[in-house]
Amino acid sequence: MEWILHNDEFIQEDKLTISKEDRGYQFGDGIYEVIRVYGGDLYTAKEHIDRFYDSAEKVKIVVPYTKDVFHKLMYDLVEKNEINNGQVYVQITRGSYVRQHQFPADSTPVVVGYTKTVERPLELMRNGVRAKFIEDMRWLRCDIKSLNLLGNVMAKQEAHESGCFEAVLHRSEMITEGSSSNMYGIKENVLYTHPATNLILDGITRRTILELCAELGINVQQTPMTKDQALQMDEFFMSSTTAEIIPLIDIDGSKIGDGTRGALTEKLQKAFEARLNLGVQI
Amino acid sequence: MEWILHNDEFIQEDKLTISKEDRGYQFGDGIYEVIRVYGGDLYTAKEHIDRFYDSAEKVKIVVPYTKDVFHKLMYDLVEKNEINNGQVYVQITRGSYVRQHQFPADSTPVVVGYTKTVERPLELMRNGVRAKFIEDMRWLRCDIKSLNLLGNVMAKQEAHESGCFEAVLHRSEMITEGSSSNMYGIKENVLYTHPATNLILDGITRRTILELCAELGINVQQTPMTKDQALQMDEFFMSSTTAEIIPLIDIDGSKIGDGTRGALTEKLQKAFEARLNLGVQI
Repeated sequence: MEWILHNDEFIQEDKLTISKEDRGYQFGDGIYEVIRVYGGDLYTAKEHIDRFYDSAEKVKIVVPYTKDVFHKLMYDLVEKNEINNGQVYVQITRGSYVRQHQFPADSTPVVVGYTKTVERPLELMRNGVRAKFIEDMRWLRCDIKSLNLLGNVMAKQEAHESGCFEAVLHRSEMITEGSSSNMYGIKENVLYTHPATNLILDGITRRTILELCAELGINVQQTPMTKDQALQMDEFFMSSTTAEIIPLIDIDGSKIGDGTRGALTEKLQKAFEARLNLGVQI
Repeated sequence: MEWILHNDEFIQEDKLTISKEDRGYQFGDGIYEVIRVYGGDLYTAKEHIDRFYDSAEKVKIVVPYTKDVFHKLMYDLVEKNEINNGQVYVQITRGSYVRQHQFPADSTPVVVGYTKTVERPLELMRNGVRAKFIEDMRWLRCDIKSLNLLGNVMAKQEAHESGCFEAVLHRSEMITEGSSSNMYGIKENVLYTHPATNLILDGITRRTILELCAELGINVQQTPMTKDQALQMDEFFMSSTTAEIIPLIDIDGSKIGDGTRGALTEKLQKAFEARLNLGVQI
């Protein structure tokens, strides 16, 4: 029996009703978060909850409870569904109203949250994945974790159709991020990644990685790489809440470094893992 | 009793179920059309239906019936709901599947359509409206009538908060279109409008207007205007399926022409109306 969060209630899926005029369904007028669960605990919950409220504020949706209440709802959802390793997906939309572009005067936001069991992608973390350069066609507010994800969807699909795991998005020649991840190159002990501007989502895992770089003495340059520069990196990797840190060993058919996981990538993975208190798995 | 189209069935609203994992709800992964109904008839139905299939094809969603069957479903929906003057809203999403960015291997698209009564905005057509320049933040596939409309929503809202009816969107200095309309300037008997590239939606009303210009001997330049050029136009107007042709008499506080509906705008409105077989209303 799986519980779903609907506003501030826990219900069964067959009790959930979504209006045809929910603005999430007609406009993608909403925002979301994915929070990772390790060993039954919500990981970096505060950061994800803060970003949920930040994204909502950027699109002027008012979350109908305090962060503390929201945190407890997330916690209860995980507990009720007995999730050990997995994730919570939670979104809020501006609610249902007769269709019009401008905000309704009095719609009530709709929150839907649910869990699923997810294992860490250990094999991919060890062996790396192939990726493909794809033009970044998305809007200019990628800093908002919104439900307008068709550009991301199309890019991921194109990568998958080429036998690749992820798209490396670029605007003109400059790499921004992945279709559902952040991107990093390492060259001569310096880590390069796009700065957290309006063109990328400021990933929670990205923030952790920047902290770990400071701890490990890896210099960080928050500067966009060109496609050419990316192909010349010693190491390349992506990060996301569910992927953690996965090496990119090949982009567009060009090997990165020697085509295997790089030494600093592995070091970062291990330092990341150490924070999870799951023991050594990778 | 209002009927809703759900795939190929007509149902009551309380029988409609939308999954929390409908990709329309989580990604805006779908497309839509709004078809105008005048005197019980679907107006320019073929053009809207063709564009519905075109948009679907661009995002690789397969509409589960032929255009003829789709046309009949639209017709039956209007008839069942006894709509005289109004519109059909219809959307298709990629369907429901465990959340992942890439397309599911086997999801079933979901069609939802419904009607509402809408009157022609005759007063606005006569008196014109105020508008506001707003930066176009949207993605680079505005030619697709997709459900990713948050950029449009934010722009329309900003315009409304400034007491304006519509946003005049611009990329750098070049005007693209409105938040839910196309945009046109007229200077010395020449009509200027953005070409139908990836940066705008190729409006059905826009196509009619270009036909009417040919009939009326108005020269057309499909060239983007700068903001400065826009403010120097003799006349300015917007068009959409439900707005038809509405004069913009003021942009960002600057009067266009003498601040009333222009002569060629009125001529186009009357020629547009003549095609509707509703008699003279405007």
